[in-house]
Formats: sequence, C-alpha cells, structure tokens
Amino acid sequence: MSAINHQVRLAGRPSGLPRASDWEFTSEDVPEPGPGSFVVEVSHLSIDPAMRGWMNAAASYIPPVEVGDVMRAGAVGLVTASAHPEYAVGDYVYGSFGVQEYALSDGRGVSKIDTALAEPSTYLGALGMTGLTAYFGLFDVGRIQPGETVVVSGAAGAVGSIAGQIARIKGCRTIGIAGGPEKCRALTDEFGFDAAIDYRAGNIRKALREHAPKGVDVYFDNVGGEILDAVLTRLARHARIIICGAVSQYNETAVRGPANYLMLLVARASMTGMVIFDYVDRFAPALAELAGWYQAGQLASREHVVHGGVRDFPEVLLQLFDGANTGKMVLALDKD
Amino acid sequence: MSAINHQVRLAGRPSGLPRASDWEFTSEDVPEPGPGSFVVEVSHLSIDPAMRGWMNAAASYIPPVEVGDVMRAGAVGLVTASAHPEYAVGDYVYGSFGVQEYALSDGRGVSKIDTALAEPSTYLGALGMTGLTAYFGLFDVGRIQPGETVVVSGAAGAVGSIAGQIARIKGCRTIGIAGGPEKCRALTDEFGFDAAIDYRAGNIRKALREHAPKGVDVYFDNVGGEILDAVLTRLARHARIIICGAVSQYNETAVRGPANYLMLLVARASMTGMVIFDYVDRFAPALAELAGWYQAGQLASREHVVHGGVRDFPEVLLQLFDGANTGKMVLALDKD
Repeated sequence: MSAINHQVRLAGRPSGLPRASDWEFTSEDVPEPGPGSFVVEVSHLSIDPAMRGWMNAAASYIPPVEVGDVMRAGAVGLVTASAHPEYAVGDYVYGSFGVQEYALSDGRGVSKIDTALAEPSTYLGALGMTGLTAYFGLFDVGRIQPGETVVVSGAAGAVGSIAGQIARIKGCRTIGIAGGPEKCRALTDEFGFDAAIDYRAGNIRKALREHAPKGVDVYFDNVGGEILDAVLTRLARHARIIICGAVSQYNETAVRGPANYLMLLVARASMTGMVIFDYVDRFAPALAELAGWYQAGQLASREHVVHGGVRDFPEVLLQLFDGANTGKMVLALDKD
Repeated sequence: MSAINHQVRLAGRPSGLPRASDWEFTSEDVPEPGPGSFVVEVSHLSIDPAMRGWMNAAASYIPPVEVGDVMRAGAVGLVTASAHPEYAVGDYVYGSFGVQEYALSDGRGVSKIDTALAEPSTYLGALGMTGLTAYFGLFDVGRIQPGETVVVSGAAGAVGSIAGQIARIKGCRTIGIAGGPEKCRALTDEFGFDAAIDYRAGNIRKALREHAPKGVDVYFDNVGGEILDAVLTRLARHARIIICGAVSQYNETAVRGPANYLMLLVARASMTGMVIFDYVDRFAPALAELAGWYQAGQLASREHVVHGGVRDFPEVLLQLFDGANTGKMVLALDKD
C-alpha cells in the first residue's frame, strides 16, 4: 500500500462545463489517526450531478467547495487505521470522504455498510443517498398513492431508476423519460417502468398524452428544462412536482425557467424542492425498507462503475453530464 | 327602465392586449323569467385580470368564453323580475352575470348580498371572490402562521390589498410590492402593510433583503415575471409561494418562466397554484369571518369604481392592465 494520498482539489470556478484547469492534482502523506479518528481507504466515489452546483461560489443548500479544497464526494471505503472506539480496521463505511484515496474522519456523517448484503458500490446507489433521495422525494414530497400516474425524468439515471421502481412497488403506474432507445429499453426491461419516453425522439407532450391519458399525478423531476415544461402541460388536478434536480441546467450560464408554470394554477398543482439532508433522522428505517426490497429482488440497483484513479475524476464527471451512464455513476479506485 | 339589454360579446381572440376589434356590442330585449328563474339588473361589474385568460381558446381552470358569447364577468345587481321561489324582486344578488345590463338566472352560483352591511361594490371586493381568494390562498395554500414574513405582489390591487390585511390580522409581518409611490403610500397608510416596495424604483432584491432580513416565509404572487424571480432569491427555509395569478404575463405572447425556480430546492420551498372555485363549500364561514373583520374596521375594502355603460368595459379592462386601479376595479353601470 502506498503511503501517499492522491487528491483532486478545486482549482477554479467553472462557467459552463468544468474544464481541466478547474482541477488540481495534489498528493500528501496518508494521515495518521489521532484519538477519536480513523483513516479510510476510499474504494468507490459517488459521481453526482449535484457536484456541479458545489463548484459554484454561491451558497446553496450546502456551502460551496472552496477553491483549494479537496473536491467533496460521497464515497465508500475500508477503515485501514483507527483510534476511534466505534470504528475498527476492516470496517466498510460510507461518508463524505472527498475525491482522494485516503480520508481522515472523526465519524461524523459516517455509517457502516454491510458488504454481505450488497456490493460496496450499491451503498452509493439503491442503498445509499441515491435510494434515500428517491424514497423521501416520492413519499414525503410527492405523497404517492397506489393507482396514481408517476412520471420520472432522468429515469435511467441514479435517482430516477430507483424512483420508478419504488413507485411501481407502491402500486403506481410509472412512466420514465430518458434519452435514447438503449436507456428506454432499460427503463421497461430492467427497472420495470410501465412505459418509457425517449425525449430525443421528439414530441414529449404527445407521448405523455398517450401514456398518461388521465394526466400526471406526480412528477419526479431530475432534469428541468424543456422536459419540465412538457410535463407541466399534462398535470392532473392536484398534481405534485418534486424538484430534485435540474441536470439539464447545471452547466448553463442562464437557467431556463419553466415557462408553463401557470399550469400549476390550472391544475391546482404544486412544485416543491427537496434536499435529502433534511431527512437524516429517518434514514435508518428508510434504508431498512430499501434493503428489504433489494433482498427480495424487487429493487434493482444498477451502478455504472468506471475503474481508474482519482485523476480520472474530472473526465468521469463530464461523462455524467454527457448522459453516458445508466444507473448510478461510480468511480472505483483501483490500486496501483 | 329601458326594455333593451345592452351586451358586450367576445368577437375575436386577442394576441397580446385586447383590441377594439375583439369586442362586439349587441342588444336584445330584456328577457322574461320563466318558472324557476329570475332577471337581474346588473349594477356593478367585476373587472378582473383573469378575464384576459378567459379570452384565450385554450381550456384553463374554466372553459374559455366562446367567440360570440357575452363576456363572462362576476357582477352584483338587483332582482327586477322573478319566477323563482327563493329570489324576490328587490333582492340584491351576486353572480356570474356577464358584461350586460340584464341577466337571466336560475340561481346557480348566485348568492344574496346584504347592502345594509356594505355597498354592493364591496361584494366584488373584500366581501366577495376577491376577499375569498386572499383568504383561502393565505390559509389553505400559504398556511400562514403568526410571526411569519408574508410578501404580496400586486399589493395595491384587489386581491393583494386584502391579502396583506388578512396576513396582518393574523399576526404576520407584511411587505407589499406595488408600482409607484402613490400605491406604495396606500399600502402602508390605508392597507396597513408593515413595508412597501416600489418595483418601479429599482432593486427589488435589495429592498427584500432590507425588509425581510430573515427571508420570506409566504409569498402571495399575483404578478409573476421579474418580481416572482426576485422573491425566489429571498425565500426562507420551507417557504410557500401561492400562485394566484400572473398579471405581468397575461398579455405576453411568450410567458417568462421563473428562471430562479431552483431556489425552491435550495429553500425546500413550494409553489402551488390555486383556483378559488375549489373552495365553494367553505365560502359561507369564510365570508362570515371577512364580514366580521370588515364590520370591526380591521379590513378596508377599497374599490376603484368607474362609472359608465357596458360599452366602456373594453377600455376599463385595459386600464386594469395599465395598473390604473388601487383596490378592486369595478365598472358601475349608470342608468341612462
């Protein structure tokens, strides 16, 4: 094992898509844990659309990553040294360890994961923040009911693919929107959506009319932009829109607002923003339910795992915005 | 009394502001009431921003006015002939009587008004749909709580001026947004807002920072456009936006969507559309509460009454979109 910790730090604040010059590669000695802390060797990094927002200077739902800091990232890894009473060498853990090979932690925001139940990478997907975001978005914000029609955008992505499955488990009719025939096939064949709409194929409104003839009760929006505007025209009375993200807009210098937002009035509908960190107190029972579905084979977690080193992170992040992934985008750190 | 009923009918569907050619003036004999119906001589017409939407072909929360039909309008008037068991000659009533001098009614959607308590025109304002819209918007959609900061746009207008007063009665801090120093003076001096922001004077965001330092808990939006975008940047955590209307957008050929809608995510906030007709079952107790505040002198109803004939309707409607009114815009039909 190398005693060097390779890291990726934010070097500049991008306008539009992040460029190579926005990153800096650094290396340090692997830290030694003092009393009450431990060291994690990171095995898998979570690659998230939200990362783009964290690179901006403006405060959002969490503070921005400062220029010069190690880039923030959720990750799983193995405890390799510990002076913490609750974490032992050999424990597998999840935490916000950052884009680096080794992280020093005091245990805050860290949870142990059970690698007998699922692969480590799955704890970045269905059994992690991704699954929790879908879960609380649908149940708490969307208040889904059996028999309702639920539309999910970014449906082949990390959160979307889980959201569609949870809605189906709860007895909803599910329609997924994704880009390209391959992803659409995954929606129906792998993730069990009742219908798939390929937004690249053209008329989203027409497809929604066909697949949701009685209107959309719940829309789980991961993308914003023209897809949000299309769904707004097809809302059922008292529809609920969950604003989970807007991946189509994160790299735009001017955000496109939903021009059809007055359909909220026509439909007496609501559009509500959610941030998963608000539900921390209820993570444990939610994760237990997700794990139950996973074990029972009702919930598939697909991870798009790219193998490499931390130096590959900038490129993998761009692949995410390119829509290269089906399921959760993960960078697995291979040892030299 | 003339036996002729003068009417204004929709002649065309406007693009942008309604023009003279969009209207047709007709006259008919005053109808005779058959069994179960009665005739109302209209005294006051409600002039509403929503009228612009009713002129469009697209179905909205109610069907469009068809070309050739008498223009839809809420109104008050006097029963002048009746073959209905519940309405007698001399009763003052409210109903959707349309832009005409006389209306035939079977009593559906009609309510009697008490002219001993307030002027007939007030039943188009604080004690009518206007007051009810403010009431259910704030309580049901906005869920206002004492001590919260409530911002109202179109605050010198019909619904806005009532909304600000109700929020104040309920112990909220109230900030009104209106155009020009005269209206802003009315906000604080007449309608009791804690602060007024003149959107024509410039920086709305800066003014909101000053007057709502802890953020906006509830935003009652009547206008949309750049004011909605400004308020979105100042939301408190878990803020509620009530979408009641968007007067800035009704005459635009392309609606401006709220580019800052992702602040809903940052603030975990919601934006919800409302239509007053959904609350019909609860109008009676709400009107009783509004009347109580009105009698106690806590709630001022200001009507901007223009006197004229039905032929003046097209011009008065344009004045409304010009922002000429403070309070409820009413066309009082003078007898020849």
